[in-house]
Order: sequence, then C-alpha cells, then structure tokens
Amino acid sequence: MSDPVTMSLEEVHGLTTRILLGHGVSQDQTRAVADTVTNAERDACKAHGLFRVPGYVKSVVSGKVDAKAVPELKDLAPAVIQVDGKHGFSPLALEVGRAPLIERARSQGIAALAVIHAHHFAALWPEVEPLAEQGLAAFAFVDSFSYVAPAGGTKPLYGTNPMAFAWPREKRPPLVFDQAASVSARGEIQIHLRDGKPLPEGWALGPDGQPTTDPEAALALMVELLAGALVGDVFSFEASARDNKDGGPPQGGELIIAIDPSRCVSGDARAGQLARAEQLFAMVLEQDGTRLPSDRRYAARLITPTEGISIPASLFATLQELQIP
Amino acid sequence: MSDPVTMSLEEVHGLTTRILLGHGVSQDQTRAVADTVTNAERDACKAHGLFRVPGYVKSVVSGKVDAKAVPELKDLAPAVIQVDGKHGFSPLALEVGRAPLIERARSQGIAALAVIHAHHFAALWPEVEPLAEQGLAAFAFVDSFSYVAPAGGTKPLYGTNPMAFAWPREKRPPLVFDQAASVSARGEIQIHLRDGKPLPEGWALGPDGQPTTDPEAALALMVELLAGALVGDVFSFEASARDNKDGGPPQGGELIIAIDPSRCVSGDARAGQLARAEQLFAMVLEQDGTRLPSDRRYAARLITPTEGISIPASLFATLQELQIP
Repeated sequence: MSDPVTMSLEEVHGLTTRILLGHGVSQDQTRAVADTVTNAERDACKAHGLFRVPGYVKSVVSGKVDAKAVPELKDLAPAVIQVDGKHGFSPLALEVGRAPLIERARSQGIAALAVIHAHHFAALWPEVEPLAEQGLAAFAFVDSFSYVAPAGGTKPLYGTNPMAFAWPREKRPPLVFDQAASVSARGEIQIHLRDGKPLPEGWALGPDGQPTTDPEAALALMVELLAGALVGDVFSFEASARDNKDGGPPQGGELIIAIDPSRCVSGDARAGQLARAEQLFAMVLEQDGTRLPSDRRYAARLITPTEGISIPASLFATLQELQIP
Repeated sequence: MSDPVTMSLEEVHGLTTRILLGHGVSQDQTRAVADTVTNAERDACKAHGLFRVPGYVKSVVSGKVDAKAVPELKDLAPAVIQVDGKHGFSPLALEVGRAPLIERARSQGIAALAVIHAHHFAALWPEVEPLAEQGLAAFAFVDSFSYVAPAGGTKPLYGTNPMAFAWPREKRPPLVFDQAASVSARGEIQIHLRDGKPLPEGWALGPDGQPTTDPEAALALMVELLAGALVGDVFSFEASARDNKDGGPPQGGELIIAIDPSRCVSGDARAGQLARAEQLFAMVLEQDGTRLPSDRRYAARLITPTEGISIPASLFATLQELQIP
C-alpha cells in the first residue's frame, strides 16, 4: 500500500478540469463539475469528491451523458421555472437555474425549480447551501438508482437520496441538513456505492438487516413523486432499469424549493427573524454532545484551503491515467 | 370495565358540537373542530378523535384558547398568505386559509400558507388531504411541545410532529403520508401523550431507549425552523415553557406548501403526469406485504359511516359530563 497523496484544492480543480476537457467535456460542463468535486473535497465529503471523477468520465465515454449539453431554462409559472439539462451533468443545470430561482423566491415569496434530464452524481447540499447564502430557506429532492424497499416490502424500488434543507444564518455559513449524507453515515450502503459494488438484494431491507422503517420508506416515496412525477422525469427504478451500468450517474429529475423567510412574516416580525433561529441553535448547542448538521463540513472547510486534502494512492494513479495527453 | 360504546359519525359530530357550544365556543370554531374530530373517528385515528375533546374543553376553560377567535387572512407576497388564528383552534384557521392557498398554488405554481397563533391538537393529514383532493401536492409542518432531543443530546427540545405530505390521485383519495403518525406508531411516546402523561426525561432518547437518530432529529430541527422562525411563531420548547399545562393544545405556528403538478412540467408532459405516479404505486403494491401510507385510514373510511365507531365507556362517560345542559 502506497501512502495517500496530498493535493491542494487548486490541484484538485486543475486535475478534474484536465481530465474532463481531455475527454471532450465542454468548458461550461467541466467548470461546473470541477467546482462541485472541489467543493466536496474542500468539505471533506470524500464520497463526492475526486472519487467520483472516474464515474463522470465513464458516463461520457459510454455516451450516456452528453458532454457538450447546453441546459435550457424555461418559465413554467410565476413561481416555477424549469431547467432541462439536455442529458448533461447536473452541476451546470443547477447553475443555470440558481439565479432565476433566487429572483423568483424573492419576488413571489416561494418558488420552485424543476430540473429534468440531468445526471446527478453529488451530494445534495450543493443545491441548497448557495440559496441559503442568499438569505433563503431551501429544500432539494432528487431520485437516484433503486436501493430502498417500500414499507413492508423487500425489493429495492426507491432511491437513497431523500432530501436536503438549508436555513440562512447572519454572518455565518447556512445550516444545511443533507438527509442522504445522514442515512449513508448510518449504514454500509454508501460504502458499497463508494466501492462501485452493486448492493445485495437483501440490503434493501436496510443496513442493519431490518426492514426499512415506515417513515424512511415513506419519505423516499415522497422524494420519488417530487423528483419523478412532479417534474416529469424518471423514477429511481426506471433510472436503474434504463442505465447502461457504466458506473456513472443515473438520469433523473430534481425539485428545488426556495422560500424567502422575510416574505413569510408581516412587517414587524421581520426584524429578528433570523435571530430567533439562532436562539434555537443555541439551545441545541448548550447540550453536551450535540452539533448542528453542517458543522463537520464547515470545520473541514477551515482547514483544507491551506492544508490541502489527501486521496488514496490508487485513486491518484487512476486519475493520472485518465489525463489524456 | 364497561363495554365500549358505539356511536354513529353523526352522533360524534353532534356530541362534540354540543360540548363545545356549551362551553362558549363560537359556532365557526365549533364546526371546524367538530369536523376535525369526526373525520379522525371516521378514519379510525382514535388518538385525534373524541379522545381529544376534553383537552379542547380544558384549553377553553383555562382561557389559553380564545373560543370566539376570528382568524385573519393576510396577503404577504404573490405566493405567500398568512392566517393569524388569533389564539383560537387550528381547524378554523386552516379552513380560512385553504381556498386562497389553492387559488395561489394554481395561479403561481407553488404557494405557501403561514399559520400563526393557532392551537393545534390533531393529526397533520387534515391539512394536506383536502389540498391533494383539489389536485395539488402538499406539505405541512407544525411544531408542538418539546419531546425530541437534538442529535447527540439528551434533553427534549423539538416537537414530535415532523411533517405530512399528500399527492393527488385521479378518481381515488390522495396518497397521504403523515410522519407524525408513523413515528408514533413505532414508539410508546404517543401512548403516553394519549394518556396525558408527561414523558420521562430519558424517553427523549427515543422509544427504544436509543438516542434519537440523526436524520429524525435533523428533520425535527427543520420543522422547528419552518413552523417557528419562518412563519414567526414560537418553537416547541417555547410552547412547552409558556403552556399553562391545562392538557389542551400548545400554541404554535404551521407552514403549509402547495404545488400544482401541472405547472411543474411543460405542456406535452402534463397529460399522464398523475398516471406516472400510479405506475410507481403499482410497483409498490405488487410486492407482498406492502401498502400505501394512507391505505389504513381509507379502509376505515369505507366502514365507519355505516357501522359507526366505538370508544371506551370511560371516555363516553367523561364526554357526557362535559355536556353542560
């Protein structure tokens, strides 16, 4: 076993960029994916960092993903916009929808972004954190491959990525809760995913061998409806069925909802609205052993820009090989 | 032990109405609460049916709830409306907001209803089911008293009622998922609540003696932010602290979001959008042992209008005494 390899965040971004451009990915798609990969490494979310780059490449090589896709923005209703990813990667589709979503949430009070025909291969906090940085509360729902059985059942049907939520904080990074990350932390599902292994059928029962609990399965069903039927894209079981098994991301839809808190209270209640939430966070943190959902990521973010990140030597070697000269 | 007492749904409504009117509750507040209580008995949700009537009465007698409150509707943004319950019960506040919320969701694509200063003593499916009956997808979030500890902590801080979700179905009652009901089905917390007993402090760790899992606590935190800070009302811990312990419902806020699915897809994808969801439901139900989240309630609903419902003799006796002649 060789020692892990240390890289700066700039090197992470540069290596990802060279690999993707070398495989014919467009400048815009490349920049958006490289930003997402680098931000994951910055926050010590190793499962969504450089580890994902070979999968991104595989999906381009296999033709599943259109590496030159130009996402299309469409106006569906006063408070609903749609981005058609045109079968490219999700990061660029999300980038195209972000500013219009923020504008609509502010002008309408609440707004939704429906993303279709995009290939999602990352965590969900990148969707909601930038919205909360702009002062909005935000939800994101995405489907994936089928890994979770319905309540009472035994066969995988729903995806693993329920939802994410972010809340704005003054002069601090937002509070972000990524349900997918929490679920993975509790089980071995994500480790299998990380290693690119298919899940044994029994695992759909849950990481501890017990059937998936009702609330989790019901939440997963809700996500399927929102990221599938509501936005007009595939369900996780369909993404699984139609996937070419290239190891890259599934096709899928995504729903993002953004709310402007200042439009949800009347005038005099606006002052101090965010300070009210801080009172609650203080109540959480005064208990021993507690932390807020996003604190681990933010702690890593203070360190990695100067100390860099490290990846296994085997992954580094793989990435070197993917750099087509 | 006496035998249970059987009543028709009309008798449930009539008895609830007589009791509330007899205690000075206004006609409108009474009708809305009696509808909610009767619908709970109709759906065999015993914990939110006649069992709750003594608590409603206590909160009127103690003066915590304004039995003659007239809710006030306010326009906060193109896609956000607010109902101030004026410290009455939630059912009337919700009723006042329902039609405007439906209209906004249809015209804007997505809309939010912020309810403040209302006293909530029921399940959450009554909030979202009527919206889905009008063809909308809907979420509801409400806080309550403090029963759930934050992740890693041991002291109750969050409420028990995370959220509900409903999805419209053609020619069938909506799919409705009430997270509060699911959580209670798994533990003994609700049984304690039902008996009006305070929870031992250790129970905040969870019904099985294990600490509340991260995702559940994080979801509970999300609900606190939405139903507390976002709409400008109290958090659960504040509702607990300021409550007069009369056994009636806590004061609190509530957030309801409604989405028009037909405004979330472009023209050609609208036809068959709901049929797509039915494909998913069929995939769920083809597995042995599965059911959809709301099926038990709908099964009861087929029976209770003709066969009536039954309540313990002790509760019947209590209710008889509450009928002030």
